[in-house]
Amino acid sequence: MLYPIELWVHGAGGCSGHPRGCQAKTPPRRAARRTGAPTAAGIARGSVLCVDSGTLARTLGHMAETSRPQHLIRLADFTPAQIDDLLELSRRIKRKTGRAQLPGKTAGLLFFRGSLRTRASFEAAMTQLGGSTINLSAASDFWELESQVGSVMDGKAPEHVKDAAAVMSAYVDVLCIRPKPAGNSWAIDRKDAEIRTWASYSSVPVINMESALWHPLQALADLMTLREALNNLRGKRLAIVWTNSPTPATGAVVNSLLHAALSQGMDVRVAHPPGFELDAGVLDEADGLARENGGSVETGLSLADGVRGAQVVYGRSWMSLEDYSNPTLAATRRARHAGWMLDEKVLASGDDARLMHAMPVRRNLEISDGLLDGPRSLVYQQAENRLHSQKALLMQLLRG
Amino acid sequence: MLYPIELWVHGAGGCSGHPRGCQAKTPPRRAARRTGAPTAAGIARGSVLCVDSGTLARTLGHMAETSRPQHLIRLADFTPAQIDDLLELSRRIKRKTGRAQLPGKTAGLLFFRGSLRTRASFEAAMTQLGGSTINLSAASDFWELESQVGSVMDGKAPEHVKDAAAVMSAYVDVLCIRPKPAGNSWAIDRKDAEIRTWASYSSVPVINMESALWHPLQALADLMTLREALNNLRGKRLAIVWTNSPTPATGAVVNSLLHAALSQGMDVRVAHPPGFELDAGVLDEADGLARENGGSVETGLSLADGVRGAQVVYGRSWMSLEDYSNPTLAATRRARHAGWMLDEKVLASGDDARLMHAMPVRRNLEISDGLLDGPRSLVYQQAENRLHSQKALLMQLLRG
Amino acid sequence: MLYPIELWVHGAGGCSGHPRGCQAKTPPRRAARRTGAPTAAGIARGSVLCVDSGTLARTLGHMAETSRPQHLIRLADFTPAQIDDLLELSRRIKRKTGRAQLPGKTAGLLFFRGSLRTRASFEAAMTQLGGSTINLSAASDFWELESQVGSVMDGKAPEHVKDAAAVMSAYVDVLCIRPKPAGNSWAIDRKDAEIRTWASYSSVPVINMESALWHPLQALADLMTLREALNNLRGKRLAIVWTNSPTPATGAVVNSLLHAALSQGMDVRVAHPPGFELDAGVLDEADGLARENGGSVETGLSLADGVRGAQVVYGRSWMSLEDYSNPTLAATRRARHAGWMLDEKVLASGDDARLMHAMPVRRNLEISDGLLDGPRSLVYQQAENRLHSQKALLMQLLRG
Repeated sequence: MLYPIELWVHGAGGCSGHPRGCQAKTPPRRAARRTGAPTAAGIARGSVLCVDSGTLARTLGHMAETSRPQHLIRLADFTPAQIDDLLELSRRIKRKTGRAQLPGKTAGLLFFRGSLRTRASFEAAMTQLGGSTINLSAASDFWELESQVGSVMDGKAPEHVKDAAAVMSAYVDVLCIRPKPAGNSWAIDRKDAEIRTWASYSSVPVINMESALWHPLQALADLMTLREALNNLRGKRLAIVWTNSPTPATGAVVNSLLHAALSQGMDVRVAHPPGFELDAGVLDEADGLARENGGSVETGLSLADGVRGAQVVYGRSWMSLEDYSNPTLAATRRARHAGWMLDEKVLASGDDARLMHAMPVRRNLEISDGLLDGPRSLVYQQAENRLHSQKALLMQLLRG
Repeated sequence: MLYPIELWVHGAGGCSGHPRGCQAKTPPRRAARRTGAPTAAGIARGSVLCVDSGTLARTLGHMAETSRPQHLIRLADFTPAQIDDLLELSRRIKRKTGRAQLPGKTAGLLFFRGSLRTRASFEAAMTQLGGSTINLSAASDFWELESQVGSVMDGKAPEHVKDAAAVMSAYVDVLCIRPKPAGNSWAIDRKDAEIRTWASYSSVPVINMESALWHPLQALADLMTLREALNNLRGKRLAIVWTNSPTPATGAVVNSLLHAALSQGMDVRVAHPPGFELDAGVLDEADGLARENGGSVETGLSLADGVRGAQVVYGRSWMSLEDYSNPTLAATRRARHAGWMLDEKVLASGDDARLMHAMPVRRNLEISDGLLDGPRSLVYQQAENRLHSQKALLMQLLRG
Repeated sequence: MLYPIELWVHGAGGCSGHPRGCQAKTPPRRAARRTGAPTAAGIARGSVLCVDSGTLARTLGHMAETSRPQHLIRLADFTPAQIDDLLELSRRIKRKTGRAQLPGKTAGLLFFRGSLRTRASFEAAMTQLGGSTINLSAASDFWELESQVGSVMDGKAPEHVKDAAAVMSAYVDVLCIRPKPAGNSWAIDRKDAEIRTWASYSSVPVINMESALWHPLQALADLMTLREALNNLRGKRLAIVWTNSPTPATGAVVNSLLHAALSQGMDVRVAHPPGFELDAGVLDEADGLARENGGSVETGLSLADGVRGAQVVYGRSWMSLEDYSNPTLAATRRARHAGWMLDEKVLASGDDARLMHAMPVRRNLEISDGLLDGPRSLVYQQAENRLHSQKALLMQLLRG
């Protein structure tokens, strides 16, 4: 049953005077802060109410949340409290004190491009929890999917994402997707339209297994590893350092890590050669997160300036967004920065610095054997934490 | 121990006079009807017996059945009673009131061509029942198989189907096969020789996951959906309507649906442009099923005539058998019938008609967005029912 | 705590005079044989000990074993007692009297080249034991891996085997690998470097699913089948017979079988055309095994001489090592020996001989239909035993 009510919205400062007939009995400014959003149950047809915009947004968000599955396209899809809970559960699972049972639950894994670590760790996480996975690869199991709404489908794609998403989510309890960015335009690929379309038509949670812009699963494992290494992250210094590789990735890992670290109040320094600036939108949000959480972010530093005083140095090769669709130009630009390699000497200027890397890693090009195989390296611990943190995520999304 | 008996066979009308020494004591005509087939246990060496041909066929069929696994190449491999049981079990599984446990059971899935819905729904069905699946794809996991009996295998194929079937069926509890029709000759492909060879050498049940001629798994889900929508199917009208697509399928889905609907006593009308007639053998059997079950079948109708008065309209694009091995001719023929699309306006002439489609569906070419996404559409329900009806099938084949 | 002791090593003949202060109290020669290796617990700082070289090797081997996972690259990686236990467990599993439970255990299967029997039987073994498998194919799931230590990785391979092995073994309980020999040089491929590199960096057991040189999983199933057919194998005669095929395998199956049979004291005769001699190193070891276990080995026999008097005839097509990297020469050489086929007539000269073959088998080229489908054939039993013996292996490696 649908019926109209009269709703007045005011700013965060409070209501400066109830509209006539408003059912909030307390004085204007205090009432808005105290009562919060009135419950829908108590609102009669034709009621008049005023509410502050923040409360309204949260309420609508909550209403949307209860009717929509909880997706994970980027870390910001979870509240800080949810992430804390996840990391605590990850820790318990690693110590085997957490109960871990998802019998009969099924995860659908859709790979539009290849994967080793993600596929293996995700399958292991799900099956070790007693569930099972269904793996579908673009290469062999399905066809091109149409994603434009309303199009006349007389082209190559025989099926629409909205249909694939609706059907697949009738069979499984969670859909995990690794989309393949088209690679023609960063302005387009950065929208992550493909996975967002899946999420908008899926009736079960959609998990991002690395899109053009975000890699939240890696960020969860990275946060877990950072906490294991540094305990409290507030005020600790993290260096994110560009490394040289003939096969650079997108900035997805770095983008998610940057936001994750800043949301914990870390001081983050990003070192990279000119032309390898991170996505402007990601950096804008990073500034906001630094301000909100009392941390800081500096970018465009030299290798030496980035590493100096860092407690953790995180190596990663990412592509230049300026040459995003031009591999030849990209190779030329990259060739000028062959010296961007991490080794024990470089890390010596850190503050007892530990090494992290999301792998795959090109040895003796990105990072030296000595550093990777030495006591400063957290890279295997970090990879192992993919398993534990993904178990925690699956339990949080699929239990009950 | 083998020994001879003397067996006289007579027609369904009864025995017109027992052969000398016949052990059936009752008068000839009645005896044959009453006693049925004598049990093997009671027949001494050299006995003389007479039996009517129908009883003999059923007895031999029963004897064969007990020594051979129950395959499902086409729906007619199951008795009507078995199909009723399956649909009832499907209904209970969907409501979660049926017990559903196949721990330790393994299904081998062999895909000689790709699949999305079938692979995902079958894997989900098996794993959610506590079993597991082994997926083998022609693309990556196995080689060309010889299917001719007695050939000297000095060609490309390093293994014979009979060996692959014998070995695979030693490892798994059921073999599910999606063969790839060669596409050179409908007269050859319609024999479904490949999957029938697998079935004849397998020691476990073989399930057809869509051959050139039949798609019994889709038909089970379709019957379940039809019952949910129309309750009793007897005398209800189903329109099967050809739709336009640049990538038409074989008639497998339509063939199985046609027989399934007729076996339930439905009135079926098949609408299609000239040149898109269904397989003549399938239509002959359809006529027989219509007569036996009190339904009717008309084919070759126009779109408008097909839909008029239908309770359910089922869209599907199938290829012309006249151009079966000639894609260029087929494309030309198809291009003349671009108007064969279902939308809300077309369905308005039905009897409160609902829409069905087995997917993948080309939106706004085969069926309009408005119809697919509107309240008349059963397509997602139909896709979901693949899961439930396949669970029922697996339980019926693998339990005990 | 590390501290020095003084250790004197002598030959198998015994100690010819204890070093001064030696703690072995018994007279020199006998003491060495009786006391074996002193237990580490009882040795004080600065102790003096003498020990024979064999005991030392076994002790160090045992110490290494406790700190390293138990790999299975070749059958000799297991002691004879371990293999006996495995075969006894296999027998009990086949009769279903053995308990078989590996819930929550995960096997990672890495296929660098295709497989039907191995993939299916291994997946079935693991899942029927309640565990699960993760399948990764070189074709779709991962990339080229660098295996040279210390290299600057600026080439095609983005990841080193040592990293892939370390990470994968953090996710699974056992790694099963089918490497792809490069095919350029037998001298190089026979080293099985790829799988040995995986084993040396893996923290969990590595199982060889057929390398260039060995196929221990087939050998376990073959031993099981031989015992079922012949009971006690000591002194029984096995003929290994080269067969003609346009797609010969490496000698892996035959190498492992040869050593397995000789380790059980069988008399083995290998029949093959000239130019198809087995690997010299494998044959050297075979001579040793024959001497140690009271069996015998003859090679280079004609088909007739090989089969005469044999209780089991094992057919297999293997490639000539002389033409290893030259398919054209190999085809020419092979074409001269088209008569090397096994049929019922050939087997008649055996001692009530049974037929074995690891499959895939080219019918009527390697072996006749009549022989394969007749009562002498053990080939399906042999294939089924892959399942049972692999279950036993997994239980032995993964339980507690």
